[in-house]
Amino acid sequence: MPVWQIYCPQHAFNDEEKRDLAGRITGMYAGFLPRFYVNVLFRPVPSADFFLGGEPVDDFVHLAVDHIARSIEDPANQRLFTDRCIATFTQFFADRGLRWELHVDNTPFNLWTINGLIPPAPGSEAEAKWRLENRPSAYEMVD
Amino acid sequence: MPVWQIYCPQHAFNDEEKRDLAGRITGMYAGFLPRFYVNVLFRPVPSADFFLGGEPVDDFVHLAVDHIARSIEDPANQRLFTDRCIATFTQFFADRGLRWELHVDNTPFNLWTINGLIPPAPGSEAEAKWRLENRPSAYEMVD
Amino acid sequence: MPVWQIYCPQHAFNDEEKRDLAGRITGMYAGFLPRFYVNVLFRPVPSADFFLGGEPVDDFVHLAVDHIARSIEDPANQRLFTDRCIATFTQFFADRGLRWELHVDNTPFNLWTINGLIPPAPGSEAEAKWRLENRPSAYEMVD
Repeated sequence: MPVWQIYCPQHAFNDEEKRDLAGRITGMYAGFLPRFYVNVLFRPVPSADFFLGGEPVDDFVHLAVDHIARSIEDPANQRLFTDRCIATFTQFFADRGLRWELHVDNTPFNLWTINGLIPPAPGSEAEAKWRLENRPSAYEMVD
Repeated sequence: MPVWQIYCPQHAFNDEEKRDLAGRITGMYAGFLPRFYVNVLFRPVPSADFFLGGEPVDDFVHLAVDHIARSIEDPANQRLFTDRCIATFTQFFADRGLRWELHVDNTPFNLWTINGLIPPAPGSEAEAKWRLENRPSAYEMVD
Repeated sequence: MPVWQIYCPQHAFNDEEKRDLAGRITGMYAGFLPRFYVNVLFRPVPSADFFLGGEPVDDFVHLAVDHIARSIEDPANQRLFTDRCIATFTQFFADRGLRWELHVDNTPFNLWTINGLIPPAPGSEAEAKWRLENRPSAYEMVD
């Protein structure tokens, strides 16, 4: 968590731009989540396979996000999140002549596992350790 | 919203058929949503990477849909929607010797943004304008 | 249902290993679901397109699962499921030097269709017939 799938035109971004975008996305969570929680996948789609409103597109990016470690449920925090996304991406995509759309799903914390471990509870000491060390490690679970 | 991901055998559809399918899908929403809300992505999967019941398949299509702008929650409307999908696709896939499966997830309206704008509320004047013009535009939000 | 998308490094698995993994996954559900319900898709991602914690990765697998036919809602059963996944995959991935993460979403049973049919209710006679015959067939729906 989170998992960001970025459906984009082929060759929309070079390696440096991909790394830049992945860094911006990771930075959105770095204040409270382990960095290694953040998955970013670029998924180039040929124009003949990518339709918007029934027409093929080559200037459009769809970012599909799954949130797992934290669900944003209340409208005020949802708005903070979308505002943060808008601030993070609008100029970047506009500079490249790209239209964009983003949507997020919340998926269950309890149906999630990393490297054979159950991720620690939000705000727990173990989560803080995972974040500090930027890697998963065994810990004593409180059931 | 909606986002349709069509996982299909490689070369299952030519460009004309892809455009036809994207048009049918877009048409399912055209009575009430802006056309540009409808994302359709074809995702060809090699047979060696696509398993059904543990066996590789080359005659199967899985359509995975995210609904954002509208969630279909009550059973009667859910049934109307699946019936509409069945009417739209059954003959098309049968004619090509393809088996198929479709499933839909509902994702939160409030965690969605298009081109740096918050999409207007369902049924609002601003949404009607977006639909009429088939493009997003700034509007006065009522919070 | 279920749909397993396995995002993995290119060439992480040969065809035999893919079939092995697809078989293990299908086996997780074979005691109660028709085998043909289980979709497994391998989605190789080039290292330059796959970031974890902001860094490109070539030793990481993310398994993203949609559950449709059954939703696991209570914490005890969720834990049974994640434990089952851990038992199924940990050694397999460790043997290949791969880190891994898995997350599951629950999606609505009523927004699902297979080959133009509405899948039978969980535990129904029709579902048992589908499972026995390992194929969908028309049945009398009780509305």
